[in-house]
Amino acid sequence: MSEQKQLKDYQLDENIQMFALLKQADIRVTNSGKPYIAITIADRSMEISGMKWDASDEEFKVLEVGKVVFIKAVRQSYRDKPQLKFLEIRPAHEGEPQNVADFVPSGPMKALEMEEEVNTLIFKIINPTWQRIVRFLFNQYRDQFFTYPAAKSNHHAFAGGLGYHSLSIARLAQSVAQQYEQLDESLLLAGALLHDLGKVIELSGPIATTYTIPGNLIGHIVLIDEQIVLAAQELKLDLFSEDLILLRHVILAHHGQLEYGSPVRPLVQEANVLHQLDELDANLQSFDNVLNETEPGEFSNRSWALDNRSIYRPSEN
Amino acid sequence: MSEQKQLKDYQLDENIQMFALLKQADIRVTNSGKPYIAITIADRSMEISGMKWDASDEEFKVLEVGKVVFIKAVRQSYRDKPQLKFLEIRPAHEGEPQNVADFVPSGPMKALEMEEEVNTLIFKIINPTWQRIVRFLFNQYRDQFFTYPAAKSNHHAFAGGLGYHSLSIARLAQSVAQQYEQLDESLLLAGALLHDLGKVIELSGPIATTYTIPGNLIGHIVLIDEQIVLAAQELKLDLFSEDLILLRHVILAHHGQLEYGSPVRPLVQEANVLHQLDELDANLQSFDNVLNETEPGEFSNRSWALDNRSIYRPSEN
Amino acid sequence: MSEQKQLKDYQLDENIQMFALLKQADIRVTNSGKPYIAITIADRSMEISGMKWDASDEEFKVLEVGKVVFIKAVRQSYRDKPQLKFLEIRPAHEGEPQNVADFVPSGPMKALEMEEEVNTLIFKIINPTWQRIVRFLFNQYRDQFFTYPAAKSNHHAFAGGLGYHSLSIARLAQSVAQQYEQLDESLLLAGALLHDLGKVIELSGPIATTYTIPGNLIGHIVLIDEQIVLAAQELKLDLFSEDLILLRHVILAHHGQLEYGSPVRPLVQEANVLHQLDELDANLQSFDNVLNETEPGEFSNRSWALDNRSIYRPSEN
Amino acid sequence: MSEQKQLKDYQLDENIQMFALLKQADIRVTNSGKPYIAITIADRSMEISGMKWDASDEEFKVLEVGKVVFIKAVRQSYRDKPQLKFLEIRPAHEGEPQNVADFVPSGPMKALEMEEEVNTLIFKIINPTWQRIVRFLFNQYRDQFFTYPAAKSNHHAFAGGLGYHSLSIARLAQSVAQQYEQLDESLLLAGALLHDLGKVIELSGPIATTYTIPGNLIGHIVLIDEQIVLAAQELKLDLFSEDLILLRHVILAHHGQLEYGSPVRPLVQEANVLHQLDELDANLQSFDNVLNETEPGEFSNRSWALDNRSIYRPSEN
Amino acid sequence: MSEQKQLKDYQLDENIQMFALLKQADIRVTNSGKPYIAITIADRSMEISGMKWDASDEEFKVLEVGKVVFIKAVRQSYRDKPQLKFLEIRPAHEGEPQNVADFVPSGPMKALEMEEEVNTLIFKIINPTWQRIVRFLFNQYRDQFFTYPAAKSNHHAFAGGLGYHSLSIARLAQSVAQQYEQLDESLLLAGALLHDLGKVIELSGPIATTYTIPGNLIGHIVLIDEQIVLAAQELKLDLFSEDLILLRHVILAHHGQLEYGSPVRPLVQEANVLHQLDELDANLQSFDNVLNETEPGEFSNRSWALDNRSIYRPSEN
Amino acid sequence: MSEQKQLKDYQLDENIQMFALLKQADIRVTNSGKPYIAITIADRSMEISGMKWDASDEEFKVLEVGKVVFIKAVRQSYRDKPQLKFLEIRPAHEGEPQNVADFVPSGPMKALEMEEEVNTLIFKIINPTWQRIVRFLFNQYRDQFFTYPAAKSNHHAFAGGLGYHSLSIARLAQSVAQQYEQLDESLLLAGALLHDLGKVIELSGPIATTYTIPGNLIGHIVLIDEQIVLAAQELKLDLFSEDLILLRHVILAHHGQLEYGSPVRPLVQEANVLHQLDELDANLQSFDNVLNETEPGEFSNRSWALDNRSIYRPSEN
Repeated sequence: MSEQKQLKDYQLDENIQMFALLKQADIRVTNSGKPYIAITIADRSMEISGMKWDASDEEFKVLEVGKVVFIKAVRQSYRDKPQLKFLEIRPAHEGEPQNVADFVPSGPMKALEMEEEVNTLIFKIINPTWQRIVRFLFNQYRDQFFTYPAAKSNHHAFAGGLGYHSLSIARLAQSVAQQYEQLDESLLLAGALLHDLGKVIELSGPIATTYTIPGNLIGHIVLIDEQIVLAAQELKLDLFSEDLILLRHVILAHHGQLEYGSPVRPLVQEANVLHQLDELDANLQSFDNVLNETEPGEFSNRSWALDNRSIYRPSEN
Repeated sequence: MSEQKQLKDYQLDENIQMFALLKQADIRVTNSGKPYIAITIADRSMEISGMKWDASDEEFKVLEVGKVVFIKAVRQSYRDKPQLKFLEIRPAHEGEPQNVADFVPSGPMKALEMEEEVNTLIFKIINPTWQRIVRFLFNQYRDQFFTYPAAKSNHHAFAGGLGYHSLSIARLAQSVAQQYEQLDESLLLAGALLHDLGKVIELSGPIATTYTIPGNLIGHIVLIDEQIVLAAQELKLDLFSEDLILLRHVILAHHGQLEYGSPVRPLVQEANVLHQLDELDANLQSFDNVLNETEPGEFSNRSWALDNRSIYRPSEN
Repeated sequence: MSEQKQLKDYQLDENIQMFALLKQADIRVTNSGKPYIAITIADRSMEISGMKWDASDEEFKVLEVGKVVFIKAVRQSYRDKPQLKFLEIRPAHEGEPQNVADFVPSGPMKALEMEEEVNTLIFKIINPTWQRIVRFLFNQYRDQFFTYPAAKSNHHAFAGGLGYHSLSIARLAQSVAQQYEQLDESLLLAGALLHDLGKVIELSGPIATTYTIPGNLIGHIVLIDEQIVLAAQELKLDLFSEDLILLRHVILAHHGQLEYGSPVRPLVQEANVLHQLDELDANLQSFDNVLNETEPGEFSNRSWALDNRSIYRPSEN
Repeated sequence: MSEQKQLKDYQLDENIQMFALLKQADIRVTNSGKPYIAITIADRSMEISGMKWDASDEEFKVLEVGKVVFIKAVRQSYRDKPQLKFLEIRPAHEGEPQNVADFVPSGPMKALEMEEEVNTLIFKIINPTWQRIVRFLFNQYRDQFFTYPAAKSNHHAFAGGLGYHSLSIARLAQSVAQQYEQLDESLLLAGALLHDLGKVIELSGPIATTYTIPGNLIGHIVLIDEQIVLAAQELKLDLFSEDLILLRHVILAHHGQLEYGSPVRPLVQEANVLHQLDELDANLQSFDNVLNETEPGEFSNRSWALDNRSIYRPSEN
Repeated sequence: MSEQKQLKDYQLDENIQMFALLKQADIRVTNSGKPYIAITIADRSMEISGMKWDASDEEFKVLEVGKVVFIKAVRQSYRDKPQLKFLEIRPAHEGEPQNVADFVPSGPMKALEMEEEVNTLIFKIINPTWQRIVRFLFNQYRDQFFTYPAAKSNHHAFAGGLGYHSLSIARLAQSVAQQYEQLDESLLLAGALLHDLGKVIELSGPIATTYTIPGNLIGHIVLIDEQIVLAAQELKLDLFSEDLILLRHVILAHHGQLEYGSPVRPLVQEANVLHQLDELDANLQSFDNVLNETEPGEFSNRSWALDNRSIYRPSEN
Repeated sequence: MSEQKQLKDYQLDENIQMFALLKQADIRVTNSGKPYIAITIADRSMEISGMKWDASDEEFKVLEVGKVVFIKAVRQSYRDKPQLKFLEIRPAHEGEPQNVADFVPSGPMKALEMEEEVNTLIFKIINPTWQRIVRFLFNQYRDQFFTYPAAKSNHHAFAGGLGYHSLSIARLAQSVAQQYEQLDESLLLAGALLHDLGKVIELSGPIATTYTIPGNLIGHIVLIDEQIVLAAQELKLDLFSEDLILLRHVILAHHGQLEYGSPVRPLVQEANVLHQLDELDANLQSFDNVLNETEPGEFSNRSWALDNRSIYRPSEN
C-alpha cells in the first residue's frame, strides 16, 4: 500500500487514479438543474476537495464517509488552491485497500515503540502514589493513548499524536530535571504522561476526530482530574495527601493561565515547568507543520496555531 | 451576652471594658527598648487594632489567638482610622463569656432556618439523578454548609454566609424559572445548592478563615466536581449520562469566564443563568457591606470587591 | 393570512408558491452576458436568498424593496445553506396580501397586552419625579415603544421587541426588589421602562431596521438621557435634584462597563441591578434564539451575540 | 503679597514665618494622651503637611479649612519628604492677607487675557448654529470657565486651567485646520471651547476642588451634552439637524475610546482631531508638571498621569 | 497621458479600451476544461479584477506583471463589486505608454517640491549632531525617500507617500514647537524626517510594494536605528552622547506603545509629541482615504486602518 | 572572611558586631529635634535597614555608600519585618575587610568556570558569521559578561548572574537541539550567549546596580542589536545577508511578545525556542529565589517576578 503515489505529488492538470479516504460527500444541484457531488478525500499527504459533475443519485448513495474509495480525477486549481475534478468515484471493492489507517497521517513513532518508552518512563517515577496512579490509568486507557491525536486540528493532530506529544514532553522533562536538581523528576514524568490523557474522553477517536459532549462541557483538564480521583479511591489512597494534591495541581495547572482553561495557575515549580515544556513541544510541532508547507526563503501563510504569525523558513545553503 | 455594648458603638476617647475575640497579638520593642504588644480584637460589629504599651512577657504569653479575652482600653484615632490604646488584656476566666461564635459576625438567618428551607428546595429537584447527588453531598457536608462563610473576605464573609448565599441564589432561581419557562428549574436548584459547596474543603472553617492547601492548589470549583464524581460512583450512577454531564457543567462554568477560574464557559442556558444569579447576589451583598459603612449622601471608599468603585449611598429623605 | 405555509417548512427540492416580504433585489449579468436578479425575501419564519435567472429589466423594475411580493420558486441548497431558485417574482396585486407586518417576526406579546402591563407598572413607581418623567416620555413615544425591535439584529430583534424586553426586565426587577428589601423598586421600574427608550431615536423603525444618524453619532444611552433632561425642563423639575441625578445615572450606567458604551459605571445599587437584569434577559433571549435553530443533543453554530460560544441543547428525554 | 518667600524656597531646618492657605486640620491624641494637630497648608509653590504638638482645643477650634492662616514652623524631613513642625498657627487677622486666590497655583494666563482670546475665537466660528450655542453657554458659564481647573489633580489642575487648556487646544486646532484644508475649522473651534465645559458642573470649584455628585454619577461629557440640548431648545434650534448632531458627537467622542468614558468613538474627522489635540495638550502639560520637579539629566518619579512612566529631563548644555 | 479616461470613470456595462498596469495574471481552467485568465489591472484611480474567457496559453505567456498592458473589456458587477470581462489583453507596444509611474496613484506633492521643503527643514535643525546624521542619511536614501509609499496598504500607500507623510509631520511639529516653547524644535524635525526612513529597507519599492525579509524580521524602527548608529560611527560621533541617545530614543519610541512595536515608550517630551503627530497625520490621511469613497450624508464601510470604525461624511450644504 | 556569621543568621534581640556593605545612609531629625541616621546595610545573605539614634553630623559625614562599614547593632522587628537598632557604625579601617565583592550575593559558578564553558560553547557555533560576531563581542565585553547581574532585581540579580543565566540557556538549548533535529544548534547557541549582552550597557555595573540612561531610553534588546551591526561593519560582513538578519531577529524577538519589549515577534523557530528557554530559566530562578525564603509546607509571599503568584513549597518527607 505504501508505495502508492500520494495526493501531494500530483501536478496541475495531471490525471489521478488512486484509493483514498472519503471525508465528505454531498449531492447538490447546479443552476441548470443537474445534480453533482461535492467531495473531499484525503490520504496521508493531504486533504483535497472537488466536484463530480453529472452525478447520479445511485453513484452518491453507495458512498460512505469514513471509508476507502477508488477515484479517477484531474488535479485542477481554484482561487490558487488545488482542487480535483472527479471523473469517477466508488467504494473500494473486496480485495482492494480498505484499511482506513493507511490513509491518515501518522506521527514519527509507531505505537509499539512508544509503549516501550512509556514503560521505561513509568519505572522512573519513584514516588509510589504517582506511579500507582499512572499505572492504573494506563491500564485503563493504554490503547487510546497510543492512537488518539493530541488535538482535533493544530499541533500533533495525527493518529498517535497524543502519545508522541506526551513522550516528547517526558524526554524534555528528563533533560531539564538533570540540569536543575531542585526539580522532582517523578512529578514531572507523572505529569507529562497524564496531563493530556483526558483527551481520550474529550475527543471522539483517532479518525475524523471531533469533540465529544463531555469534551465540550467539561474539558480534558477536568476529565482527567476526575479519573485520577476515581483511581485514587479505587486504590484506597488518601485523596487529600500532599502527593495526590500535587499531582492533581500539576495537571490542572498545565495550561498555565486561567484564560487558557486551567482552573488554577501553576503554584508549584514542577507545574510551571510542565506548562512551559508543553508549550515548547506544541510550538515546535506547529512550526514544523507550517514550515513543511513553506518553501525555503519564503514566509508561510498566517497560522492560527502560532497566534496568527506568518513565519519564515530560512533558505537552504 | 448579646446586650453587651459593641465595639462599633464606642466614641473617640471613650473608655472601653468588654470581652472580645483575640485575632492577633505580637510582642515588639520600642526604640527606647521597652516591650509592647500589638493587638487586634473583634466582636460582631467590627475589628480594631492597637497597642498595649509597657507590656510584660508574662502578659503576652497567656494570650491565645482565636480565644475570648477581657480588655480595658481607650478608643483613639490614628491617621483617621479608629484604634485602641489597651490598658489591660487577659484571657476570659471560667464563668466569663468563652464562646467564640458570640464574637463573629453572623448572617441574617440562623442555621436551622436555612436547613429547613434547603430541605424544601431539595424536594423541588424533580430529576432523580440530581436530587440523589444533592442529598448525598448534603448528608456529607451539611454542618459545614450552614456554618462556613462564602469567602475569606468580601461578600458573605460571615459565619453561615455559604448557606445564606446559596439559598439566596436558589430563591432568585425560582423566580427566574417561573418567568422563563424554557429553563429547567431542577437543574438551577441543584446548581444553586452545590455550586459553592467546594468551599467547605477550600476554606479552613467558620472562624479565622484561611485557604487550605487543596483550596489553593485545586480550588473550590474542581473540588466539588470531584465530590460529585465520587458520589456518582458510590451511587452507581453513569458518570457520562447527560444528566451528570449537565450538572458538572453547570457547576464548573459558574464563574462565567475562563479568566475567573471556570475551566469551561457556560454552554447550557441554566449554566449561564446560574452564573448571572451568583454575580447578582454577590454584588448585592457587596453593595450592602459597603453601604453599611457609608453615610447617606456620601460616596464610599473604593471597594476591591466592586472593581474598585467608590459607590454612592443616596440621602434619606 | 396566518395559515400560509411558512418558508421554514419547505423541504429541499420542494416547489414554493407564496407571498413574502421583498428585502433585497439587484439585477446582475452572468459571464455569458445574460441578466439575472439576486433576491432576498422573508416571512415570519426566516429570511432566504436566491437567483431569478433569465430575468428581464421589466421584471426587475416593478420590484420594490420593503413591499410584499408573490413568488414561485424551488428550495435548493448552496454550500449547506438553503437558497431559492426563483421561477417567478412580482409585486402583490390589489386584493392580495399587502400588509408588511404580516411578514415580519413578532414577539410573544401583543402591543395591547404590553401597554396594559406598562400602565400597571407606572402606577407602582411611587416617587413622583420618576413617575412624571416616565409618563411624559411614554406619552411622547408610546407607539414606537411597542413596535420597535430592541436591536437591529441579535436579541429581541423582532417587532415589539423593545417593549417586550423592557417589560421582562421590569418583571425581574419586581422579583428581585421583593427578595432584597434594600432596593428601591420605583427606581428599578423607572429604569427598566426607560433604559432602552432611546432606541426609538437610534433605530429607523420596526421593519428593515437600520441605525439612524443620531443613533450612530450619539447612541441610545445619551439620546434618552437628553430626552429626560428636556422632559424635566418642561415639567419644571430641578435638573440637579438627587432624584433626577439618580434616574439619569441608572440609565447612563446600564451597560455596566465603559467599554460597552456607558459613560459611567454603576455607582448606585439599583444601577448595578438594572445592568445585571438587562444582561440576564438579553442572554436568555439570545440563548432562546440560538437553541430554536439547534437540534436536541447538538451544539449550535457559534453565536456572535453569545461571545462566539457554540452552545448545547440537551436532548429531550 | 507676591514678594513673600514661597514654601518651596525654604531649606531643611530653616525657620518659617508666613501666611498660607489651610487645606486640612485634625486634632489627634498621642500615645501619651496629649492632643496635637495634624495640619496641611499650601501656597502657590507647593503643599506641605506637619504636626503642631502640644496643641489645645482652643487653638484648633478657630482654624477653618479653606481660609488663610499665619504660621510659624521649622522645615523638617520625614521619609525623604519635606514636612513642617508647626510652632504656631492662627487665622489671618483683619488687615493681614486674606485673599485665598493669592495662595493657589495659577496658570500662565490671566482670566482677562483668556477672555479676550476666547471672544476672538468665537467670531471665527462661521457656522451660525455652533456659534449661537457657544455664545449661549459662555454667557451662562463664563466666570467658571476662566477660574476652574481642568481637573482635580493631574494636568492643568490649577485655577484657570480649564480655560487655558481649552484655549491651547483651540490654538492647535487653528494650525491643524490651516494645514489640512479638508477640516471644518468652525467645528473644531466650537468643540475645543465646549468639550470640557461640563467640568464647571462636575467639579466643586477653583479651590479645594472635589467631584460633585452629578460629576461622579453623570460625568462632564454627558453634563455638557445636556446643556447643549437645553440651549438648543431655548434657542429654538432643531435638535436633530445635522449641525447639532455633529456638535454633540464631537464633544461626546472627545475621550477617543469607550473605555475612557466617551459613549461613542470619533466617527467624524473633526471629532478624531479634537480627541488627539486634547490628548496632545494634556500630555504636554503633564510632561511639563513632571519635568518641573525633575533635575536636568535625571529621570522623574513615576507619573500616574503619564501611564506610570518615569520620564527623562535632558541635561542642559 | 494624463487625459486618458480613468478606470473609476467607467459605468456599468460600458466598453473600455485603455492602457493599464498589470498587477496579477493567472491562467486557470473552467469546469468544462477551457482555459481562462484571471487578471487584475490598475491605473491611478483604482484597481479592478476580472476574467478573460477562452484564453490561450500564448496570450497568457506574453503578459508580465508590473508592466503596462493594453486592454479591451466591459465593466460588469459581481457581488456588488465592479469587475471586468476582458475581451483583449496584450503588452503595450513600442511607442505606446510604457511608463509604470503613470499608472500608480501619487500623492499631492511632486518629489521635487518635497525635496526643496526637506532641504529647508534640515537647515532648521540647529543641533549639529542631529543635522549631520540627517544629512548623511538623506544623502544615502534621498531617492527612495521621495518615491516609496509610507505603507504597503493603509494610510499614505501611494508613491511618494513616505516623503509626504514625513513632511506633513514636520510641518505640524513646527506649529507645535512654536506654541509650546519648552519643546526642542530641532529634535522634533530630525525625528519627523527620520522616523519612518527605515521603510526604504522594510518595503520592496514604490510599485507592487511588499515587505522585504529584513522588513519582516527586523522592522523599520530598528532598521533605521541601525543606520543611525552606523552613520554616527562613520561621522566619528560619540555613540553614547546624550544627543545621539535622544535621537535614537525619539525614533525608537515613535509607535508610542510597546504593543505597537516600539521597544521603548516615549520618555522624553519630544518623543511623545512625535508619536502623537505621527498618529494625527496618519489618521487624517486614513479618514481622507475612506471619506473619498463615501457619499456625503453616508457612513463608510468599516475601515481596518481606523480600528474598524464606520465613519460619517457630513452632507454638503 | 567567608567564615563571618551572616546577617540572616541573627535572631531577634541578638547583638550583632560585623562588617557589611553600606547601601544607604541619610541623616534626619526626630520630632524632638534630635538627629538620627537611617541606614541600610547588606551582606551576601540579605539586606536590612534601621536607625542609629542620637547620631552626630560627624558620624554621618564619614560614611560612604558602596563601601564596607563596621557596625554594632541589635536585631529587632518592626511591622513583622526584621530591622536593626544601630549602636555604632563606621568605615572599615585599613587592614579590615574592604573588598565590596565579599558582601554581595554571588551565583553558583565562579567567573573562571563560566568563561571556560563559554569558550567551549563558542567552538560549537559552526556557522562562521555567527561565530565571528560572538567572538568579536565577547572580546569587547568579556569582563562585564561574567560579573554583571542579569537584572536590577528579580531573577539572577546577583553578581555574575548575566553569565550564569546565559550559560543555563545555552545548556538547555543543547538538550533541545539534540531532541529536535530540525533546529539549528549554532543559531540557538549564538542567541543564548548574545541575547542579554546589551545588559552590560543597560545596567550600571555589578554592585548597587541601576539602569543607565541608554538602558532606559534604548533598552538592552536594541543596544546589543546595534553592537552586532557595528561588529558586522568592522568585520566587513554583509549586513543584509540572511545569516546576519537571522541572528539579529533571534535576539530582537527574544522577549516573545511586542508588549514585553521585543520590536518583532519570533518568526523563526530558533527565535521561538530561545524565547521559551529564556522564560523557563528565568522562571526556575525566580521560583528558586522565592522558595528559599519559604518554609516547607507553606505558601510564599506574593512574588512580582512570578506574576504576583503566592507559590507553594511542598513539605519535605
